[in-house]
Amino acid sequence: MAEKRFSHVDGTGKMRMVDVSRKRPTLRTAQASCVVHTTALDIADVSHPDGIDPLHAARLAGIQAAKQTANLIPLCHPLDLNQILVDVTATSGGFMVSATIVTVSRTGVEMEALTACAVCALSLIGSIKRTDPNARIDDLVIDRKSGGKSGDWGRDVAPST
Amino acid sequence: MAEKRFSHVDGTGKMRMVDVSRKRPTLRTAQASCVVHTTALDIADVSHPDGIDPLHAARLAGIQAAKQTANLIPLCHPLDLNQILVDVTATSGGFMVSATIVTVSRTGVEMEALTACAVCALSLIGSIKRTDPNARIDDLVIDRKSGGKSGDWGRDVAPST
Amino acid sequence: MAEKRFSHVDGTGKMRMVDVSRKRPTLRTAQASCVVHTTALDIADVSHPDGIDPLHAARLAGIQAAKQTANLIPLCHPLDLNQILVDVTATSGGFMVSATIVTVSRTGVEMEALTACAVCALSLIGSIKRTDPNARIDDLVIDRKSGGKSGDWGRDVAPST
Amino acid sequence: MAEKRFSHVDGTGKMRMVDVSRKRPTLRTAQASCVVHTTALDIADVSHPDGIDPLHAARLAGIQAAKQTANLIPLCHPLDLNQILVDVTATSGGFMVSATIVTVSRTGVEMEALTACAVCALSLIGSIKRTDPNARIDDLVIDRKSGGKSGDWGRDVAPST
Amino acid sequence: MAEKRFSHVDGTGKMRMVDVSRKRPTLRTAQASCVVHTTALDIADVSHPDGIDPLHAARLAGIQAAKQTANLIPLCHPLDLNQILVDVTATSGGFMVSATIVTVSRTGVEMEALTACAVCALSLIGSIKRTDPNARIDDLVIDRKSGGKSGDWGRDVAPST
Amino acid sequence: MAEKRFSHVDGTGKMRMVDVSRKRPTLRTAQASCVVHTTALDIADVSHPDGIDPLHAARLAGIQAAKQTANLIPLCHPLDLNQILVDVTATSGGFMVSATIVTVSRTGVEMEALTACAVCALSLIGSIKRTDPNARIDDLVIDRKSGGKSGDWGRDVAPST
Repeated sequence: MAEKRFSHVDGTGKMRMVDVSRKRPTLRTAQASCVVHTTALDIADVSHPDGIDPLHAARLAGIQAAKQTANLIPLCHPLDLNQILVDVTATSGGFMVSATIVTVSRTGVEMEALTACAVCALSLIGSIKRTDPNARIDDLVIDRKSGGKSGDWGRDVAPST
Repeated sequence: MAEKRFSHVDGTGKMRMVDVSRKRPTLRTAQASCVVHTTALDIADVSHPDGIDPLHAARLAGIQAAKQTANLIPLCHPLDLNQILVDVTATSGGFMVSATIVTVSRTGVEMEALTACAVCALSLIGSIKRTDPNARIDDLVIDRKSGGKSGDWGRDVAPST
Repeated sequence: MAEKRFSHVDGTGKMRMVDVSRKRPTLRTAQASCVVHTTALDIADVSHPDGIDPLHAARLAGIQAAKQTANLIPLCHPLDLNQILVDVTATSGGFMVSATIVTVSRTGVEMEALTACAVCALSLIGSIKRTDPNARIDDLVIDRKSGGKSGDWGRDVAPST
Repeated sequence: MAEKRFSHVDGTGKMRMVDVSRKRPTLRTAQASCVVHTTALDIADVSHPDGIDPLHAARLAGIQAAKQTANLIPLCHPLDLNQILVDVTATSGGFMVSATIVTVSRTGVEMEALTACAVCALSLIGSIKRTDPNARIDDLVIDRKSGGKSGDWGRDVAPST
Repeated sequence: MAEKRFSHVDGTGKMRMVDVSRKRPTLRTAQASCVVHTTALDIADVSHPDGIDPLHAARLAGIQAAKQTANLIPLCHPLDLNQILVDVTATSGGFMVSATIVTVSRTGVEMEALTACAVCALSLIGSIKRTDPNARIDDLVIDRKSGGKSGDWGRDVAPST
Repeated sequence: MAEKRFSHVDGTGKMRMVDVSRKRPTLRTAQASCVVHTTALDIADVSHPDGIDPLHAARLAGIQAAKQTANLIPLCHPLDLNQILVDVTATSGGFMVSATIVTVSRTGVEMEALTACAVCALSLIGSIKRTDPNARIDDLVIDRKSGGKSGDWGRDVAPST
């Protein structure tokens, strides 16, 4: 029986929101990242004193999305988040997006980090899709996490930008 | 000057929500897809009469997320959506996610299709991350769109599942 | 095969958001109601120049909830609503709640009317539950609708207050 | 003067959000239920490998709605929820819906349990209303609660399905 | 009887969401503005290649808030918005905020313009309050509107920056 | 270098959500206020047994908005709020709005108090704008706060109603 292996699934195979009420709130962090492959690299140069920089807009979209994680992912717990960082870096083939979330809570924040990256990258796509409709998001993945019962974890390979 | 090329950026380089009030509402569709690479393929088998199937949960999460697109992507227009379809298919290396959006509106729904795919895939990751923390979302991209001034468009290559 | 009979379910048995893009927007109305059975009838008398009347609060909660219908009910379409009315009337055994929704749209607003009633009644329960924890919502039902392909419809029996 | 008796109403008759800042967070649970009376019992049989089961959709709608309780019910406190369970069972005359909420918090979660039941039942109605527009939600009520100053409480009678 | 004079209030004195279903959708615009009085003018100089410019953040907050107007103001109608512009300009005593909204709709967008200004200004206050806790928002007002039955209107006096 | 002075800005000039995870949750309060200048003072007299009092509606709008602060102001932390009070008082030249927020949390609630005042005042403007389109919100400002590392603080001057 495979079910016990999965988050959200109990021993009998019922998919459920996990009960975390017996856990103690502890410091937990999670980091995720993704890449945006695009030929529209000059979006990074758009800047105007009275306008909004597309990269700044994307960072803010990621921050705001992290706060919506429990509303977007059905079996996630609503949590207070203590810090949300979202970064966008230009690379030779597009953009690298990463997000770090910090909380003192009864459950981890990996989904919040992934959601922040996804929406930040989608916001970039929104700005470049007229120029490069083939722009593509890849390698959206958890990079590392700390805290909680399962302890620290980091993924094996570096992101293949 | 690169700015004119970008959605959300006007001729002077100001990043702005585009004014679509002079356009006529017309039928528009968009389709997007992504893949989830994972070893936790048996999540597709989780099923219990009183539970929630993780793949069903992910489909619904994608549908609900499409309705939140304008709240998540800062420069997207709020739109009435006339149909939202989200599909999840098991493949040899994970899952294929696709979404189709239909609207009669003044602007396209590519971002809605991408957002539905992203959140559907994130919901899957939420269920499998305990078993496979290296699970990864790839190839999140617009597949095709129809309607609007720019007309029909399809991307060059098939998704590299 | 039963599936064709259901909203949200297509001919093959797939549950889906219905495609309404080919329909023309027309005037549609829906009315729903429910009752709150309670011994805490004196909640209707709470009033203070600097306070908030519980019945007014409940009416407003119903109005605001109607606007959230598509976010609450997964397969409902997001719609512009042109009018939302919510009424609360004291009866001998509690309160009668009713809601009327008007739209010019491609699909009906029965779910919006039901949602407005449900949340209005829940808001009343929130105020009286300390005094009457057995307070109960009953007879939440569509009363009538007009417009659309299926035309006008009214339910058979009057609400059993 | 009746006002002191009511939640949300202070000693002078002002309706207010209660100040819970001096209370200590403790483990609290609440359970609520309702019934959906309908002749469209075969909705429980709708199932398709690529579709969404209406009962699963309704359960998820209830879970997601519980997280929105403070946004729907004006004088409810925003809370972290540690577990949300929603069940739907077919009965001879329709469906029985129940919800259990667990939190470690400064205030109870009865409204969250009621809201989860109401929206789960509304989601069912959304699927069956074309077949049975007279479908009706009844007996939406708090079943039991534990924790907090007022301690454990259970309602007198079993739900009259 | 004063009631007829007010938006949201009908001839009998009932405060209600206005029924706009019989109106035809027409092009409507509204412009609003406010000022932020502060000594922390150097917030305009904060800029970092990997950071988020506080003025850009405030503009985006205003844009996103305009889309939430019907959720924030109870008797406002939910509307599709076709353009949202928010500008922030440094002045000798602080900042000038203005917002322009364009829609093709059955009702005006003055509240959307005011809400965009208010939240943009609040976002600025959020950034400067540690340095200047006495920072103050003034002169939040509708500047002009066009379209609709009442036609074009502009306010008498220029904002007193 | 000015940046260190600002909330949301770190020592290198990066604008960021502040990390509050190392702070202990403590009792914190904040109070804010604003004025609505208007000639439409008779809005305070609108009252109808089946209607909604505009001043009650505005108070509730303010309460509900406080809960949305972190969704509206990009770099605010999502918080549990333990009490939200919003008052509206008629004055000779309009209305005085004030809000008090109480939390046990890792960060202050000044933005929540300001947001509650702003949206309460906007709701009033929504009701009176047909009669007095020149109605204006002024003096939106933090009045006092308590708790946290920076301790108690009150602003110098009383609001200039």
